Amino acid sequence: MKLLIINPNISQSVTDLIEAEARRVAAADTLIEMATARSGVAYIETRFEALLGAHAAATLAGERVGHYDAVLIAAFGDPGLPALKEALEVPVVGMTEASLMTAAQLGQRISIIAISRRITAWYRECVDQCGLLGRLATIRHLDAALRDPGSVQADHAARLLELSRLAVEQDGADVLILAGAPLAGLARTLAGQLPVPVVDGVSSGVCQAQVLVRLNAGKALQGSFARPPKKPHAGLADGLAALLQRDA
Amino acid sequence: MKLLIINPNISQSVTDLIEAEARRVAAADTLIEMATARSGVAYIETRFEALLGAHAAATLAGERVGHYDAVLIAAFGDPGLPALKEALEVPVVGMTEASLMTAAQLGQRISIIAISRRITAWYRECVDQCGLLGRLATIRHLDAALRDPGSVQADHAARLLELSRLAVEQDGADVLILAGAPLAGLARTLAGQLPVPVVDGVSSGVCQAQVLVRLNAGKALQGSFARPPKKPHAGLADGLAALLQRDA
Amino acid sequence: MKLLIINPNISQSVTDLIEAEARRVAAADTLIEMATARSGVAYIETRFEALLGAHAAATLAGERVGHYDAVLIAAFGDPGLPALKEALEVPVVGMTEASLMTAAQLGQRISIIAISRRITAWYRECVDQCGLLGRLATIRHLDAALRDPGSVQADHAARLLELSRLAVEQDGADVLILAGAPLAGLARTLAGQLPVPVVDGVSSGVCQAQVLVRLNAGKALQGSFARPPKKPHAGLADGLAALLQRDA
Amino acid sequence: MKLLIINPNISQSVTDLIEAEARRVAAADTLIEMATARSGVAYIETRFEALLGAHAAATLAGERVGHYDAVLIAAFGDPGLPALKEALEVPVVGMTEASLMTAAQLGQRISIIAISRRITAWYRECVDQCGLLGRLATIRHLDAALRDPGSVQADHAARLLELSRLAVEQDGADVLILAGAPLAGLARTLAGQLPVPVVDGVSSGVCQAQVLVRLNAGKALQGSFARPPKKPHAGLADGLAALLQRDA
Amino acid sequence: MKLLIINPNISQSVTDLIEAEARRVAAADTLIEMATARSGVAYIETRFEALLGAHAAATLAGERVGHYDAVLIAAFGDPGLPALKEALEVPVVGMTEASLMTAAQLGQRISIIAISRRITAWYRECVDQCGLLGRLATIRHLDAALRDPGSVQADHAARLLELSRLAVEQDGADVLILAGAPLAGLARTLAGQLPVPVVDGVSSGVCQAQVLVRLNAGKALQGSFARPPKKPHAGLADGLAALLQRDA
Amino acid sequence: MKLLIINPNISQSVTDLIEAEARRVAAADTLIEMATARSGVAYIETRFEALLGAHAAATLAGERVGHYDAVLIAAFGDPGLPALKEALEVPVVGMTEASLMTAAQLGQRISIIAISRRITAWYRECVDQCGLLGRLATIRHLDAALRDPGSVQADHAARLLELSRLAVEQDGADVLILAGAPLAGLARTLAGQLPVPVVDGVSSGVCQAQVLVRLNAGKALQGSFARPPKKPHAGLADGLAALLQRDA
Repeated sequence: MKLLIINPNISQSVTDLIEAEARRVAAADTLIEMATARSGVAYIETRFEALLGAHAAATLAGERVGHYDAVLIAAFGDPGLPALKEALEVPVVGMTEASLMTAAQLGQRISIIAISRRITAWYRECVDQCGLLGRLATIRHLDAALRDPGSVQADHAARLLELSRLAVEQDGADVLILAGAPLAGLARTLAGQLPVPVVDGVSSGVCQAQVLVRLNAGKALQGSFARPPKKPHAGLADGLAALLQRDA
Repeated sequence: MKLLIINPNISQSVTDLIEAEARRVAAADTLIEMATARSGVAYIETRFEALLGAHAAATLAGERVGHYDAVLIAAFGDPGLPALKEALEVPVVGMTEASLMTAAQLGQRISIIAISRRITAWYRECVDQCGLLGRLATIRHLDAALRDPGSVQADHAARLLELSRLAVEQDGADVLILAGAPLAGLARTLAGQLPVPVVDGVSSGVCQAQVLVRLNAGKALQGSFARPPKKPHAGLADGLAALLQRDA
Repeated sequence: MKLLIINPNISQSVTDLIEAEARRVAAADTLIEMATARSGVAYIETRFEALLGAHAAATLAGERVGHYDAVLIAAFGDPGLPALKEALEVPVVGMTEASLMTAAQLGQRISIIAISRRITAWYRECVDQCGLLGRLATIRHLDAALRDPGSVQADHAARLLELSRLAVEQDGADVLILAGAPLAGLARTLAGQLPVPVVDGVSSGVCQAQVLVRLNAGKALQGSFARPPKKPHAGLADGLAALLQRDA
Repeated sequence: MKLLIINPNISQSVTDLIEAEARRVAAADTLIEMATARSGVAYIETRFEALLGAHAAATLAGERVGHYDAVLIAAFGDPGLPALKEALEVPVVGMTEASLMTAAQLGQRISIIAISRRITAWYRECVDQCGLLGRLATIRHLDAALRDPGSVQADHAARLLELSRLAVEQDGADVLILAGAPLAGLARTLAGQLPVPVVDGVSSGVCQAQVLVRLNAGKALQGSFARPPKKPHAGLADGLAALLQRDA
Repeated sequence: MKLLIINPNISQSVTDLIEAEARRVAAADTLIEMATARSGVAYIETRFEALLGAHAAATLAGERVGHYDAVLIAAFGDPGLPALKEALEVPVVGMTEASLMTAAQLGQRISIIAISRRITAWYRECVDQCGLLGRLATIRHLDAALRDPGSVQADHAARLLELSRLAVEQDGADVLILAGAPLAGLARTLAGQLPVPVVDGVSSGVCQAQVLVRLNAGKALQGSFARPPKKPHAGLADGLAALLQRDA
Repeated sequence: MKLLIINPNISQSVTDLIEAEARRVAAADTLIEMATARSGVAYIETRFEALLGAHAAATLAGERVGHYDAVLIAAFGDPGLPALKEALEVPVVGMTEASLMTAAQLGQRISIIAISRRITAWYRECVDQCGLLGRLATIRHLDAALRDPGSVQADHAARLLELSRLAVEQDGADVLILAGAPLAGLARTLAGQLPVPVVDGVSSGVCQAQVLVRLNAGKALQGSFARPPKKPHAGLADGLAALLQRDA
């Protein structure tokens, strides 16, 4: 299978982190292609930035339509995920959704470790939109200014470990999600140092995309995830227009 | 006060409908300025189309920043609403949110009358994101193909009235929302023909925007609705970049 | 429009506070008439006291029926609100409901600042009955004995400000409600000192009543907010009997 | 134990029905005293009528304070229940709450059979306030005008049986509640004719009151069900004033 | 009535505690028969141990079928409760369910005091399955190793009292449940020392079983609590097979 | 990896169905070992039968402990799933949980197609325990007596297809789950005949087990999914005792 992984941030350093972790976990016959947003911000932490990232991700997905078997939106918060599920014939997976659905099979109550305070309210809304707010224990977060999204793991390793432990001991988490592409791979690094299972977003996303392609469950032809109906449109970038002009 | 009303659809006929109803209900000292999306689709019914509308609406809001006291996103589903609440210093109101918060003061259980089947699943998610799913009785909808979003009211008047009555008699609705900009003004037309209060989205939006400006409650400087933090960005239209470059 | 504002407490000093703030915010063509409960307690903090206040408020509303275009129940907790929505032909607004529906448009998660510990459990139930418990961050409260409901603001200004800041910084509130008629006007006083929007109950109530009158959405003739059906009754004060004896 | 049973309706015929069923189910050492509201309506079906019934019930409970070991509010909807739990030292039980908590031990999903359409929206709110909305299957109801609350059972026996069966077969109810004092005793009459357990409100109320007295769990001295704090009051009937003037 | 009380733990010392409290509270005409699990663990704290306890309890109930009018599963967490409600013709009561439904009539928000940290996550799930999670304030717990489930009360009296007070003062509990058979009778011991009503699991269970027998509401013949349909089975202990082989 | 698939029913014909579908979907390097319950019933449809199946499944898992890398509980309703997650060091997957978490990535609202009416109430509770009740559209079911669980697909093909279509057209399902081991493989058979994605329980279970093994997230050493603490036990079958006696 061919998997298109879209980084909705403009940071190549984060794309590199994602790619490394994705290649490590992917099955031998999964071909990975990376794409980095051409427009947007260095690192999405807010609803406004997610709007920008969603638009950039949809544009990339549209430009390459027909050349992949599944798409992974590789930013926590899953910018553009439900929109692309409608517009594409192939499975579309998000890091938040995939890691939540994975974690939910490893324990009952889930805590998320995030890289900034600002991001947590929006993450909570994402969990709610997945329908799993009742299983969220807490979202804990770093509280320092970040030098570079590409070096968060190295810069804040001890604090990330401490936040994880607090989530287990004080919040009753049965399982943890290390949230955000900048933390890709950290679950592997921390293996053995935490008292509960730890889920990585990129790895979960790649594996869940492989599941959906393997199951071949079919594209919705009716209902709210069918392709949008054809209708007049204007002013769209080619990638976006491509997603509206094809026959259903 | 100056109120910028943004139609996130590209249909001028719908903008005209919105403007007529907005001017009818607005206070004498409310100056209304209309803006129509330059990119997107004729009528938003899906999550993908809402992504396009959100981007177009944010671009328009950014281009005119500083020239209005409040913004009304004049499409049901409120494309871009939470993002713009972060990015702008002034109140931003959405037709769905405003009509739900208005209707919630007129009765306990709310039904929504929509103009297509396709749109209903997404509307339900919007009500959920407003936190009011527990007060939603039903969403009923037209089930015929629409000739033109500008003439839905005239083309389907009898059926819209019937759907409204069924929502009251069979679903237990205490109050109705006629949803979608193409139904702007219909609540006024149906006055006296329905057994429960009926709320219009455009009118609710204009009135609630006036309330928020009058109350002058202040812009968030902290928390998840503060302005997005300054950071590197790229590839954005001028209007969008304008919203990121200013000092908080 | 003529707006009847009912203080369900017997305290004239609180009525004066309410009136001052109401006149400050009301539109030029809104005529305000105040009424103070003739029976009940000095300041409602409990469910039992709310039962007394509801009865007193309904009696006042019934005595003056036909002489106003809308009613504002001007105590947090909205004593008698759903009952009066049934019994009256005109819109009835409550301070809690109006401030919640206003605040819900200014941020996602709402904290309430209350004037006593005792009152908080009941306030939480009120938020739940509005259907917005999912959007409540916390209710924080003063914990000192109150000299006089009319001087709470002056006596406890610094602590009220601190509670507000804690709600933002520790509880993740995006918007605050200063709850209870004794805090009427405090939001205005604190303008500029708090990092998120602050909503005042009286001002919200007056503005939302104006919205409902302007929208002229109609009185329920069917469903659970229609007038109560005519049936035998006995032993009621004139104001209450007046609400049962009229033709629907 | 002495059990005061208050009918918040003014109908002596309903009081008689309640008394008959209560005496049939009560333990040998339970002394029952009946009280009928002196003010209010013949049969409570609306939130406004419940406000009247709550006031009348509280007045009766206050007049006889000290002369009973528990109170049963014998109208579905439990007018005044939370208020009286605060104000009295002894357990206060409501027909809705008692029958819900009883039914919840007999099956997972509960349907309620009600005597009018009008009453159902308010009943649903009562179930919600008990926190058991998630266990409510449906509320089904008679839809004919009622001659007399005292003869509903005889007049509509066949339809009540049919509604009960529909709740089981179509709505998935595991257990039924026959709601409203006018249906007191019907569960006994229908014994053997229904395919699931059926719960009677009056019987549940008497039995649960006996449980609470037997357990002797104590009166709240702190928290939201402690006695209301002493404070100035005015204009109250003697029974109500009595509840405010005692030492905690 | 004959009440079979099953201790799903293998500890005779806990059975003795349960029996003493049960006999203290039972009505004069309630005949109590005790049964202790022959297989399982000394004290159930986990979902796996509850699986063992459920099987042991069902076996005991099946062996004695026909010789009791009601069953009380006398371990918090109610192992096997919904299964036995299906399989038996008589009411089956659980300590968790009975104490929750009792406590819910004494206050709005409930806190549970538990005897180990490990047990709390599972207890929370039990409250959720009862549908009352919305009324749970907190679960507080001892955090020391337990010498013997039979002496927990004596060993940790002061800490249990402190936890109870914290639940009221910091968590807003209106009513407390002392959870787990090892705490049977402690509510009586603490009478007068706590500021809110305290509910005992064994006492609640006995009293609620008496209520259900007295109400004689009938066994489900349809729906999800009817007897399981007859079908091939194999390899079951006699007690379990007995529950499957009888005619419905 | 070695995957132990446990059929908690005693029907070898169903085990064969499961095995065929599991081998079809499994990765080349997944070694599948089947186990059929030695005790219990032919087909689990009730909570009581699930208690039997949970015990049988746990016994089998315990007997073979150390000889597999993951376990799949291959009956809808997931008998014993949370208990085995505690007791085993390796991932344990259930058909319900795995298909829900898979389906949740393919659409927002999920409908389940079940093979009997009796089973639906219990399935609904399973969805609730997974925390996804908010995403459940409906559970539709066959309503005829079943000849043989092994031939349900062949006997009722047309009706199963019709139920699936109704779930999409009338209930708003975006994705379907064909529930119960007897329907294993039907999703593949129906491919192309349904307008939305269809998820198979066995296939989802195998694929999700592969994901969890691949991610290697670790076993809980603390919290509610750690191994049960060592303590006295008695009377357990060897397989069950084996799960309690090992060092954590």
